[in-house]
Amino acid sequence: MFQRVCIIGVGLIGGSLARAARAAGLFGEVVGCGRNEANLKRAVELGVIDRYDCDPGRAAEGADLVLVAVPLGNMEAVFRQLAGRLAPGAVLTDVGSAKASVVAAARAAFGQLPPGFVPGHPIAGTEQSGVEASFPELFQGRRVILTPVPETDPQALAKVQYLWEGAGAEVVIMDVAHHDEVLAATSHLPHVLAYTLVDTLSRMGERDEIFRYAAGGFRDFTRIASSDPVMWRDICLANHDAVLNMVERFQDDLADLAAAIRDSDGERLLKIFQNAKAARDRYCGG
Amino acid sequence: MFQRVCIIGVGLIGGSLARAARAAGLFGEVVGCGRNEANLKRAVELGVIDRYDCDPGRAAEGADLVLVAVPLGNMEAVFRQLAGRLAPGAVLTDVGSAKASVVAAARAAFGQLPPGFVPGHPIAGTEQSGVEASFPELFQGRRVILTPVPETDPQALAKVQYLWEGAGAEVVIMDVAHHDEVLAATSHLPHVLAYTLVDTLSRMGERDEIFRYAAGGFRDFTRIASSDPVMWRDICLANHDAVLNMVERFQDDLADLAAAIRDSDGERLLKIFQNAKAARDRYCGG
Repeated sequence: MFQRVCIIGVGLIGGSLARAARAAGLFGEVVGCGRNEANLKRAVELGVIDRYDCDPGRAAEGADLVLVAVPLGNMEAVFRQLAGRLAPGAVLTDVGSAKASVVAAARAAFGQLPPGFVPGHPIAGTEQSGVEASFPELFQGRRVILTPVPETDPQALAKVQYLWEGAGAEVVIMDVAHHDEVLAATSHLPHVLAYTLVDTLSRMGERDEIFRYAAGGFRDFTRIASSDPVMWRDICLANHDAVLNMVERFQDDLADLAAAIRDSDGERLLKIFQNAKAARDRYCGG
Repeated sequence: MFQRVCIIGVGLIGGSLARAARAAGLFGEVVGCGRNEANLKRAVELGVIDRYDCDPGRAAEGADLVLVAVPLGNMEAVFRQLAGRLAPGAVLTDVGSAKASVVAAARAAFGQLPPGFVPGHPIAGTEQSGVEASFPELFQGRRVILTPVPETDPQALAKVQYLWEGAGAEVVIMDVAHHDEVLAATSHLPHVLAYTLVDTLSRMGERDEIFRYAAGGFRDFTRIASSDPVMWRDICLANHDAVLNMVERFQDDLADLAAAIRDSDGERLLKIFQNAKAARDRYCGG
């Protein structure tokens, strides 16, 4: 489907997509690019990419698909290095977890957005990172949200959709701003809460003892606090407004709950807990 | 070890301890007690108890061990029904998740605390409840905290410790107030946060859509919001001061984090996230 593919950022996501697409016969030659040469060498050894070039502009030369899978904070710099270097008709897509900031970075870097630009976000991942952690089934049964902009060529959109479906994902098309709100609620806010909780406990005097009595529920609850700090710093900065909006909603609700505890208002507490349990059981199953 | 055991509240915890202790040969006759007769009948069918009596005072007659495994909100009522009915030398223990309130309930009900009273708390459980969910391995490798009071007879303490160790648990002795602080940090606060988060999202206009994009991290993060609402209402009321203290610490830290997002202070965000990840990885492993 794509004769020559350039993957900038051959980590968990970029590497897994390359593995899945190669397995599905969708990729011809795959050229990797990144700042960590050891990781790129490893990617060649693992057969995830065929060769690499550490310069994005050179790596993208002649590619009919350029996938940018770098942290949000590096998007604009990469786009700047790609400006004027994309082959005519090339499809350009990314996997950033916040879309308005990626679109803004592309506008800043390219001036006029390339019609082949299809912003995207696979809702998949683990707490691991790097090409070693990549595997072809990562996107199987997962959702990928594509957020085309007015400039996006429908043919480019169709190609990116076909690619993700070929990797086993279900593709959903969504508005950029709406994507950012939904993800702030279901992903960015939970990460902020998990990081804050572990940080709070880790700064208590008896922290060694406190963590000793943390049971299974705590392990599950805080698993996402083991995610990559740089990635999550970038997400909080990039999706700034939507994340703050969700944090504020949560703060209001937590203050209400604290007031109910302070007032020993068992009825109110029970109502909140019952409502939450019903929603969790309904939407997330066991 | 115990000739006749009375278990008041034959649910996940009470039922699992009965199963484990019977398997270890520590229990003679087991008399169940509770308010749900269908559950007690089922417990007899399952062989978890030998017979039952719905009146706590009668059920405890002649028992050398009385285990109270009811929600915290029902402790005092049960203790009142036990007052004057315990056999001489009987050991009385409970499994409540907050200890100061249980000790206060016992003082209120018994006047003078029975020397056989050993407050306890197994740090084990699932989101399930009822005798059907009970299983003998529930306490295997888990910690059980015993919080003896000045009145507690050391022999009674030793017997309860032996019982829990026979069920596969590791027993730790702790001061009542300290137990309540540690559990507020590692268990009560996380439950409050999980319930609040799911409640917040469930009251958003686009909730059906929002939950649709919740991925694996969200499921793990919110699993504890599927716990029993009555139990958690009771814990929040019973451990009131320690829970509020932890909620307030968390609120302060979340406000700091929100300020860092508002100020686009990437350095501060990164520091918090790195600190949290390091603590999580160190104390909880993968």
